[in-house]
Amino acid sequence: MQIRESLAELSSEPLHASLTAASMESMNLLNNIAGAYPSAVSFAAGRPYEGFFDTDQLFTYLKVFTGYLRDTRGMTEQQIARTLFQYGDTKGVINELIARHLAVDEGVDADPGAIVVTVGFQEALFLVLRALRADDRDTLLAPSPTYVGLTGAAQLTDLPVLPVPSGDGGLDLDELVRLLRTARHAGRRVRACYVTPDFANPVGVSMSVPDRHRLLEIAAAEGLLLLEDNPYGIFHRTPDRRPPTLKSLDPHGRVVYLGSFAKSGVAGARVGFAVADQPMPDGTLLADQLSKIKSMLTVNTSPVAQAVIGGKLIAHDYSLVAANTAETAVYRANLGQVLTGLGARLGTVPGVSWNEPDGGFFVVVTVPFTVDDPFLEHTARTHGVLFTPMHHFYGDGTVSRQLRLSISTLTPDRIEEGLDRLAAAVTDRIAADRASGVAVPTGAAS
Amino acid sequence: MQIRESLAELSSEPLHASLTAASMESMNLLNNIAGAYPSAVSFAAGRPYEGFFDTDQLFTYLKVFTGYLRDTRGMTEQQIARTLFQYGDTKGVINELIARHLAVDEGVDADPGAIVVTVGFQEALFLVLRALRADDRDTLLAPSPTYVGLTGAAQLTDLPVLPVPSGDGGLDLDELVRLLRTARHAGRRVRACYVTPDFANPVGVSMSVPDRHRLLEIAAAEGLLLLEDNPYGIFHRTPDRRPPTLKSLDPHGRVVYLGSFAKSGVAGARVGFAVADQPMPDGTLLADQLSKIKSMLTVNTSPVAQAVIGGKLIAHDYSLVAANTAETAVYRANLGQVLTGLGARLGTVPGVSWNEPDGGFFVVVTVPFTVDDPFLEHTARTHGVLFTPMHHFYGDGTVSRQLRLSISTLTPDRIEEGLDRLAAAVTDRIAADRASGVAVPTGAAS
Repeated sequence: MQIRESLAELSSEPLHASLTAASMESMNLLNNIAGAYPSAVSFAAGRPYEGFFDTDQLFTYLKVFTGYLRDTRGMTEQQIARTLFQYGDTKGVINELIARHLAVDEGVDADPGAIVVTVGFQEALFLVLRALRADDRDTLLAPSPTYVGLTGAAQLTDLPVLPVPSGDGGLDLDELVRLLRTARHAGRRVRACYVTPDFANPVGVSMSVPDRHRLLEIAAAEGLLLLEDNPYGIFHRTPDRRPPTLKSLDPHGRVVYLGSFAKSGVAGARVGFAVADQPMPDGTLLADQLSKIKSMLTVNTSPVAQAVIGGKLIAHDYSLVAANTAETAVYRANLGQVLTGLGARLGTVPGVSWNEPDGGFFVVVTVPFTVDDPFLEHTARTHGVLFTPMHHFYGDGTVSRQLRLSISTLTPDRIEEGLDRLAAAVTDRIAADRASGVAVPTGAAS
Repeated sequence: MQIRESLAELSSEPLHASLTAASMESMNLLNNIAGAYPSAVSFAAGRPYEGFFDTDQLFTYLKVFTGYLRDTRGMTEQQIARTLFQYGDTKGVINELIARHLAVDEGVDADPGAIVVTVGFQEALFLVLRALRADDRDTLLAPSPTYVGLTGAAQLTDLPVLPVPSGDGGLDLDELVRLLRTARHAGRRVRACYVTPDFANPVGVSMSVPDRHRLLEIAAAEGLLLLEDNPYGIFHRTPDRRPPTLKSLDPHGRVVYLGSFAKSGVAGARVGFAVADQPMPDGTLLADQLSKIKSMLTVNTSPVAQAVIGGKLIAHDYSLVAANTAETAVYRANLGQVLTGLGARLGTVPGVSWNEPDGGFFVVVTVPFTVDDPFLEHTARTHGVLFTPMHHFYGDGTVSRQLRLSISTLTPDRIEEGLDRLAAAVTDRIAADRASGVAVPTGAAS
């Protein structure tokens, strides 16, 4: 019976706390419900639109990139093959191309040497959190509600997150200052604040330009790093009215810019990056420190995957705004259709409201009842529509009367069908609550 | 002066301890010396041979893989494009192909659902260590000397490593048991032992088959997981005399197999995997737990990168032994040339000896003086040859009279040139030591 005892012994020993965290359970539960109702209309997944995917593009991008290595960088065929097949520089191969993209699309002047190319945004985030978490006094500020990947990466580094209330104007900056000072007074070392100024997941809305300037001033005055996440910024309904990124406005070197190509490039390449130009005492940059951690985590980002993104950047003169003209039009149309469709179906229902983002993937709907997981499961089963209950983005048991709709992957007819189903689910539930005498709140969402 | 103060404040706060660890400094120092002497003959880099790299193969592999998705998995063009362009399953896309490879090449019967495809071996290692490190009682056993990436990944998870002496027979198994019991008696929770049974980096030699069986029995009796790393196993001088992997011999489910395609597949794809079929109390497998951590670290391994490896596996009927016939011949010839060349040049020099691996990338040379970094720097500058001082693989200040030669990337003429230079450096140093009256040790290497 030695075998069974040994296995039992393995199983009974605890695993890392991140594996039993509420945010991890949330992801599993949402995935399970989505998997159980595959024919439901899904407003749940925040994935890029699939209508323009084309396998031939992959080969085109790779050829454009090898042409660039040959013609612009003067490589021999052997050097090109080595670049793609061998281990590569830990910091990356396409740093120069990313720097040009940042100049063209984001107004960011980045030194290629201050860029670390990563396995998606998520690895870039992990590298920064791992670098900053030196001991158990360290703390991170982050919006509440927030992206579940932030919560997860923080848990992987045992870094506690101090939630900063975030509403339709983004982060509550007065609360941020108050929480920061209180935490420091209590002996916490508040290292950074995570923020998505543009169309943040899950709230969907953006920070005003004055608030961006004020956040930068707070960061400079308080000695706080800002970790700027910007996957949705280019998907603005009116592209020439995009507000500037924090990084482009930052006179004090307080912003670490964490880039993603998952929505604007090719999600399947899993390429992202960090711009970390903060100087270190030893004369290196923060990027060099992140690179050291990366060398022990993933060694380097696949140069083949980087070649796909590099080729796409070159093919569109370094502009992902230009590369995503068709996609942006889809997202703009979908967002407009969802907002109009909500108005037509639920505009006069007491207690029902929603925000109106200028772009991005998300709309948050407030209803006069608690949006819990049993309601999601009921709606998926009975009405055939999926969304994300907002309580999952708090990660601390917060209840909420809000749900998140993602508009990015649907076609117009599926949106109409989905909104019909959602409206039926909401009005049926309100009617049922009234019939059973449940008080219907109509004030601000909790 | 607010700006300067803020930057100073950032810089003065500590970063994670992994960034100042000895192993991280080792990597930097070795990279700096290699970078300073680019024309030196390098026996330092343990990279795959570059002579057969061919960019066209990349396109071939991708086409083979899309053909497989179309013909074998019955996907439409739209589904193929979605597989490559969209976010993918966290556990991977090519699990079935990897399982077939493991059956063909390694005698391992792996359920595809027990496989997690990772960003190289290094991420697979990190996922396991992150899962197993629950609190500060947890400890890992690992050979000493060992692969620096093991030390680095353990540091990223704040997991202390208890070194197990490892010599020309691999791990000292009596010492392993003694250390394990002593540590547990002292309240440590010893979760696993990292081991590379075949041609381990840096010692180059392999464990005997009886020792493999004994290690498995120890693991079962003591309730210990074994983390098997096997990047070099297929590069055996006599392929039909390869000893079986630990995983293939394991009757007790104690082995987590950590796979690499960096040497046998395409290093630039950065694809590896874990086979973690251990059952958890909740009915899932350890692989499912690793997948959860991966979802917060890199989300999923690039399906484009997986397609490159998947295509290579299919193109060679799932056998990387078959795919690497030419490479194995190069490594076999290089290893033979290095061993013969050492004999011809240093065979009669007192105090100089080396081991004789049956394959792999590494040979360890013992000399009658301490091989420190100043000696490496001197040898690079004066003689134009690079190697790796073995003390870097101890990571704890251990001094050593050994150096590691890597035979994998050189051509025959460069090997001759390099051995001439190395022999000159060694004999010059011995003569200088004699001339200055330094006692020359001739016993076993420390």
